[in-house]
Amino acid sequence: MKRLVLKFGGTSVGSVEKIKKVAKIIKKRQEEGNEIIAIVSAMSGSTNVLLDKSKLISDNFDNEELDVLLSSGEQVSCALLSGAIIDLGLKSRSWMGWQIPILTDNNYSSAGIINIETKEIIKFISRKGVAIITGFQGISSSGRITTLGRGGSDLSAVAIAKFFNTDSCEIYTDVEGVYTTDPKTNKKAKKIDKISYEEMLEMASLGSKVMMPESVQASMINEIPVHVRSAFSGKKGTIITSESEINFKKLITGISYSKNDAKITLVGVVDKPGVAADIFEPLGKNNINIDMVIQNTSSDGKKTDVTFTIKREDISKTIKLIEKNKKYLKYDKIIHDDKVSKVSIIGAGMIANPGVTHQMFRSLANEKINILAISTSEIKISVLVEENETQTSVKALHKTFDLD
Amino acid sequence: MKRLVLKFGGTSVGSVEKIKKVAKIIKKRQEEGNEIIAIVSAMSGSTNVLLDKSKLISDNFDNEELDVLLSSGEQVSCALLSGAIIDLGLKSRSWMGWQIPILTDNNYSSAGIINIETKEIIKFISRKGVAIITGFQGISSSGRITTLGRGGSDLSAVAIAKFFNTDSCEIYTDVEGVYTTDPKTNKKAKKIDKISYEEMLEMASLGSKVMMPESVQASMINEIPVHVRSAFSGKKGTIITSESEINFKKLITGISYSKNDAKITLVGVVDKPGVAADIFEPLGKNNINIDMVIQNTSSDGKKTDVTFTIKREDISKTIKLIEKNKKYLKYDKIIHDDKVSKVSIIGAGMIANPGVTHQMFRSLANEKINILAISTSEIKISVLVEENETQTSVKALHKTFDLD
Repeated sequence: MKRLVLKFGGTSVGSVEKIKKVAKIIKKRQEEGNEIIAIVSAMSGSTNVLLDKSKLISDNFDNEELDVLLSSGEQVSCALLSGAIIDLGLKSRSWMGWQIPILTDNNYSSAGIINIETKEIIKFISRKGVAIITGFQGISSSGRITTLGRGGSDLSAVAIAKFFNTDSCEIYTDVEGVYTTDPKTNKKAKKIDKISYEEMLEMASLGSKVMMPESVQASMINEIPVHVRSAFSGKKGTIITSESEINFKKLITGISYSKNDAKITLVGVVDKPGVAADIFEPLGKNNINIDMVIQNTSSDGKKTDVTFTIKREDISKTIKLIEKNKKYLKYDKIIHDDKVSKVSIIGAGMIANPGVTHQMFRSLANEKINILAISTSEIKISVLVEENETQTSVKALHKTFDLD
Repeated sequence: MKRLVLKFGGTSVGSVEKIKKVAKIIKKRQEEGNEIIAIVSAMSGSTNVLLDKSKLISDNFDNEELDVLLSSGEQVSCALLSGAIIDLGLKSRSWMGWQIPILTDNNYSSAGIINIETKEIIKFISRKGVAIITGFQGISSSGRITTLGRGGSDLSAVAIAKFFNTDSCEIYTDVEGVYTTDPKTNKKAKKIDKISYEEMLEMASLGSKVMMPESVQASMINEIPVHVRSAFSGKKGTIITSESEINFKKLITGISYSKNDAKITLVGVVDKPGVAADIFEPLGKNNINIDMVIQNTSSDGKKTDVTFTIKREDISKTIKLIEKNKKYLKYDKIIHDDKVSKVSIIGAGMIANPGVTHQMFRSLANEKINILAISTSEIKISVLVEENETQTSVKALHKTFDLD
């Protein structure tokens, strides 16, 4: 008998009909001889409806009450799913975060899980009961409801897999798995069978919406392999696991790209210690998220250019902040380009393979694509290109690295 | 400093705008120097939306999961109200039934309150905090969420008033109070300043929708005076209290009437012991609710007529059940009238005043209204009339008993 942790996202339980389908999936998995623990998100859309109500009450709605409000969403979906499973003739019961309890810290709206009690639920599932657990929520040491913030239900699933000592965790969602690139814009995109945590982390950060980076990180830290799969097709999806579990046949696992980026260059910045800090400190304090930063060694030792990318909506705010500090920043001029995209190739295989970099640049050169900036990490190379060349770049790279 | 228990019904918190208004009412009451405990229902309509979802899952949705589902409604309204109060600059926090805890028995969907812990909340309100409590819900000894069933939030308010030793409890609702008769159909209806528990119980059972009979009974048993008032007008409403608190200037306090009644008469029933039981036992077993029952002494000692009233929707089911048992029931024929109404005059003052009965009948006779059946209790006289004469009857009686 195997113990399974199955997580169903908001779209998988987005309607009464879908909840009934999920109940059938769970029944089938139990009949195969498994113990089942299911983690459930709020029905898709319901969290936003609640959030909108809180905003109508106050622009600055109390964090602790917000958690009380939002946690009602999973309470609804869990009760409905448990009821649907009972209706199929199985034994089932729902557990709210506070009932287990899932103990968290006191960071309301972005709490971290400290401990999960397992005794009662283990007893229940060992007697053929299906345990349904609310994702995204827990209880603080002061007895108040908390929520986990971004990627919350996936984080719950990974933590539950860890505390219940299961081998893995399955994330049922509305896509078939993780793809080599976005399947909506590129028909040659292929489903990836296995991907390493590190690669998935890069994919997640760079715009693949399958799992939030926080959840991937949690599964990596706790060494819980995650199986991302469709709640509707029944097919195998993508397994996210450690590098050692993967036979890297290909250099590159996937290609991702960002949208809504903008590039700013400060030309003729005086090259002295602390200049980068002077530029970025006021931006950070004003919640402007800096992505790529490129600064070359200056040829004459006196002046250099600093280029960085930000989200497009922050561009006018950023320029104002820099101009305001012109007195002590000292630069010749600012130039900006608000229509750029970052295209990245990701693959743990590139660590042992120095040829990847020039292959990438050659592939783009063949398409006459101008590279505006370059940034690299151990398992990723990102280039900045003009936005209208994004798809051409992705297509070329997809072919070059044998992903078609 | 006075401790107030204020209960806000579903229509009073039916929208974000209304919740903001309720927050202002609470602020005002606290500024008057009171400690505030507010009990809140789910936003009007939301419980039905949840109930409909459960019905789409199963005709026989699990009771325990239904309580988990429905209790999310008050969680939402309490969090929003508490957030709105905090937004006004006050200290506030919400408590779910399980957090207090409000301990109930294990009768899911119609649980009874056993105990309410008060320590934490008393500490909070004594330090200028506004305590917001979910109505309608509690927690069973096995740690699962329960709901109280019909009239639930009013029951919560009365029980909280009792356990927190307050002098009274205020029920904020969408009407101005309890009226001498339905103000929608009778323009001469007047708001009642004070009414006894017993009278209110008769009014509630007979169709005044202000409070469920179960809640009136709870306030009577616990001797908690209830002030029913409008959440919007700010005016004083109706105080429901013990008879000893009321100066009965008038014989009759109010006039109520039922809708959707039907009358069945079994003609020529053999008059022997046990016959009434034989008639009503199969009906009771089939969940048919019998209201009035009239059986005269038979003139010849052999045969008599038995008349009773039921809800109109039960009429064909009732007739079928009786005909099925004709073998041992023995009667000559069944006649039925499915368009009748019960009109009642209610007043604790009638106990000491034998003249009320004939005054009532004379008043109706003057309007040429035919009385189909009569039923009396200590503080109530009900007559059955043809449905189309209901309003004429109410109007005549309203005038006769000085209520205009």
